[in-house]
Amino acid sequence: MKELEFYLEQRKKLSAFNYIDFLTGWDAQTDAAAGSIAADSAYQSVLAEMEYKLTTDPEFERCVEALYANRETLDEALRHEIEVTHKSVADTKKIPMNEYSAFGELTAKAYPVYVEAKLTGNFRLFEPYLERIVRYCRKLTVWLESDSAKGYDVLLDMYEPHFTQAKYDAFFDVLRNRLVPFVKQKTARVAPVPQWAKQKIEKEKQREFCEYIRDVMCFDKNFGIMKESEHPFTSGIGTDDVRITTHYYENDFVSSVFSVIHETGHATYERQVDPKLNGTLCGGGASLGMHESQSRFYENIIGRSEAFWRVHYPKLQSVFAPKLDGVSVEEFVGYVNRTEASFVRTEADELTYPLHIMLRYEIEQKLISGELETADLPEYWNKKFTEYFGITPPNDSLGVLQDVHWAYGDFGYFPTYALGSAIAAQLYHAMSKDFNVEQSLASGTTARVNAWLKERVHKYGASKYPDEILRLATGEDFNPDYYVNYLIAKYSRN
Amino acid sequence: MKELEFYLEQRKKLSAFNYIDFLTGWDAQTDAAAGSIAADSAYQSVLAEMEYKLTTDPEFERCVEALYANRETLDEALRHEIEVTHKSVADTKKIPMNEYSAFGELTAKAYPVYVEAKLTGNFRLFEPYLERIVRYCRKLTVWLESDSAKGYDVLLDMYEPHFTQAKYDAFFDVLRNRLVPFVKQKTARVAPVPQWAKQKIEKEKQREFCEYIRDVMCFDKNFGIMKESEHPFTSGIGTDDVRITTHYYENDFVSSVFSVIHETGHATYERQVDPKLNGTLCGGGASLGMHESQSRFYENIIGRSEAFWRVHYPKLQSVFAPKLDGVSVEEFVGYVNRTEASFVRTEADELTYPLHIMLRYEIEQKLISGELETADLPEYWNKKFTEYFGITPPNDSLGVLQDVHWAYGDFGYFPTYALGSAIAAQLYHAMSKDFNVEQSLASGTTARVNAWLKERVHKYGASKYPDEILRLATGEDFNPDYYVNYLIAKYSRN
Repeated sequence: MKELEFYLEQRKKLSAFNYIDFLTGWDAQTDAAAGSIAADSAYQSVLAEMEYKLTTDPEFERCVEALYANRETLDEALRHEIEVTHKSVADTKKIPMNEYSAFGELTAKAYPVYVEAKLTGNFRLFEPYLERIVRYCRKLTVWLESDSAKGYDVLLDMYEPHFTQAKYDAFFDVLRNRLVPFVKQKTARVAPVPQWAKQKIEKEKQREFCEYIRDVMCFDKNFGIMKESEHPFTSGIGTDDVRITTHYYENDFVSSVFSVIHETGHATYERQVDPKLNGTLCGGGASLGMHESQSRFYENIIGRSEAFWRVHYPKLQSVFAPKLDGVSVEEFVGYVNRTEASFVRTEADELTYPLHIMLRYEIEQKLISGELETADLPEYWNKKFTEYFGITPPNDSLGVLQDVHWAYGDFGYFPTYALGSAIAAQLYHAMSKDFNVEQSLASGTTARVNAWLKERVHKYGASKYPDEILRLATGEDFNPDYYVNYLIAKYSRN
Repeated sequence: MKELEFYLEQRKKLSAFNYIDFLTGWDAQTDAAAGSIAADSAYQSVLAEMEYKLTTDPEFERCVEALYANRETLDEALRHEIEVTHKSVADTKKIPMNEYSAFGELTAKAYPVYVEAKLTGNFRLFEPYLERIVRYCRKLTVWLESDSAKGYDVLLDMYEPHFTQAKYDAFFDVLRNRLVPFVKQKTARVAPVPQWAKQKIEKEKQREFCEYIRDVMCFDKNFGIMKESEHPFTSGIGTDDVRITTHYYENDFVSSVFSVIHETGHATYERQVDPKLNGTLCGGGASLGMHESQSRFYENIIGRSEAFWRVHYPKLQSVFAPKLDGVSVEEFVGYVNRTEASFVRTEADELTYPLHIMLRYEIEQKLISGELETADLPEYWNKKFTEYFGITPPNDSLGVLQDVHWAYGDFGYFPTYALGSAIAAQLYHAMSKDFNVEQSLASGTTARVNAWLKERVHKYGASKYPDEILRLATGEDFNPDYYVNYLIAKYSRN
């Protein structure tokens, strides 16, 4: 089939552009000096244009159409890839090129203004940019609307296929009804931060322990490195080049320990995809929500468990010796599971975290539908925040301006964070039927957990939709009750 | 002119591929883990193929032809660029595309094998790769041969335009006749290495002093970083992203100090090119020889001078305190200018250095002509080495495996190193007519030297041929006597 041949050739090029995206992103966030980034971005925009032209190439489109018409004859992974590519080619073509590049320019200009606004707590500085970004996203929902998705659903689908407002509404309703009252009760009294948690631990010591944790999680350092950056992240291409970063705060060692567990969770997912998907357009994770479910599974369900620290706390004590000598494992586990109402999402604990997301979800819904206007955002944010958390942000830097996502135009992204936590809990429930997760950690590594997740989730990569993978892995559809049950059970013990 | 418009559009894409080459090379030598390199090389070969297609695109070729025919109407820099591009398009078309991309893949795979072979001293591990690399380079000389260049000349011209075997033979003849006897005499008796030079100085201290040196050389860290790698190198794209690496040996601080001066010399050249050449195909240095002349100018003529250390030695003493407390500046300068027969080119002193290059030049000549085969390399190397230096490498890591260049297929590159030293001496002679170089260093920085080199050499970038720039800068053609005179005068003082 000549169309297949052409498709596979073009796919090689598109994959090579994915490699470039990976590498330029990695570089910008790690090595590139401040003055270099603007210079380099000029090259990157030329490359982005080349990639756009590859995707919208008429001959490529014709081949994708032909393969789509005959998709029943293709093997399963390729059939899925063709379905996804068919939609992405059609979608890309629906966005007027001039609007697309104007939006690229707009967000490029908006970013430094956003940074300035956040630094000075001045929302009005950023407002005109955000207003135009929101207007573009509203138009995007019109260009891309279909029988199955309209309005905000169009954006949600870009980050989590098949996860519509109807599904998210049901999810957040459960959180609102069952979790909000529980959180209010648990955060009413906050224990003070113990002094030992804020002692100075030098970077080299933290790195030594983080490398130990990487080994505990069985990450093979022959296929990726652990580096430093302002904000921790994971990035990779295929199964053989998967890299993570962390940020060491000398007066908050707990931060780097858990960000390494979190990022190594993402990395384990990437590493355990079936290598035959390398170089296809279906490598990597199935969706943002599914990816986040893996990082949160390792960070919260494994990494914050007493079973985990019963094994590894002595090592932590010995690497940091003598600084944790008088601190028991129970105290340590208690501290990393404490809960309190706080303003900043990225610093929130496991229990209060989803409420931060619920707030953003509601705001995005109203912004995209036109029910809420950009100008009214700070007031609305603070009102809702007070309602859910019982505290009011003292300024917009700690409120509506705290996250960068909207400056990039990433509306529809936030809800996947909460979805990830909920999927993790559902997977944990299913895993626990097969073996005793906590007991398996006594072996000293997460090997058994890794193996289960590889077989049930990771190996598929993006060769199936995330909801289908969840069904295969757990035997049922997404069910947020597991998440709320897990949280209430865990925090009732504290 | 429509052809010019098309050319400028295509140039943007070609520049973007230069950016990719820069970034993938940087990544492979710094962050990429051993297991990742092979995986990434598959993407790189697809990209190399795309770049090849851009260069050989018939419409691009037609435009280049049209512009070449009308080159007298173009401004000087663009005219030069069109001349160079006209040749490069013609040359590229002569290389079969499948061979070209297979070679890209081969060298990407060869690199980690080379590293392993060097680490273990096992030449036979690397031999099959090197054998294929040599075979490709021999074919390359056939594909690209012309009336003006055949055989090894084809490769030499790729690194140093207009510099043929006839010229190099004449150059090395001068060295052989005037320098070899002098070197034999000077290295007959070797002073023992003083204990202070081999004391352990921790990496962090070395880095602190190297950062000081970077400031002395006026390198703006906002436009590039200093990192570590196995083999120090400089890499950049345009004037705003220029990066260097070094290698810290805890028992040899002198090594990292001079490699940083050397690499910052390269970086200063890149940084001082006229920024209007950014994004053209004539940015960066004029040739490898000219580039090396700059690194060696700073490393040897400036960095090993007593005038330089009279200013900066107290800082070295204070950063490394108390380890150099009893060592005078005269002792230090004497040590960094001592000469002896040694095995490793990169650690060789200024006087013996060109003999290391002479050896490689002769070997390359024979390898490319077919007079010598890869399998016989270690034996031949050791025999010739013993002849020139009077000592025999104890293993291949200190012999034929010491340099990475051949793993990249860079035959024809080495001779430019010796050429660079000779050009540096010729520039020093010209500079000294304009101002007292040693006195200018008393200011605490190399600002005056930088300014002279910017005006006479750097600003041109690659918008002129190197021999033309040398004539403009010094008022005469290449003349190796300045080099030999300089070396003999300097080492007769010791």
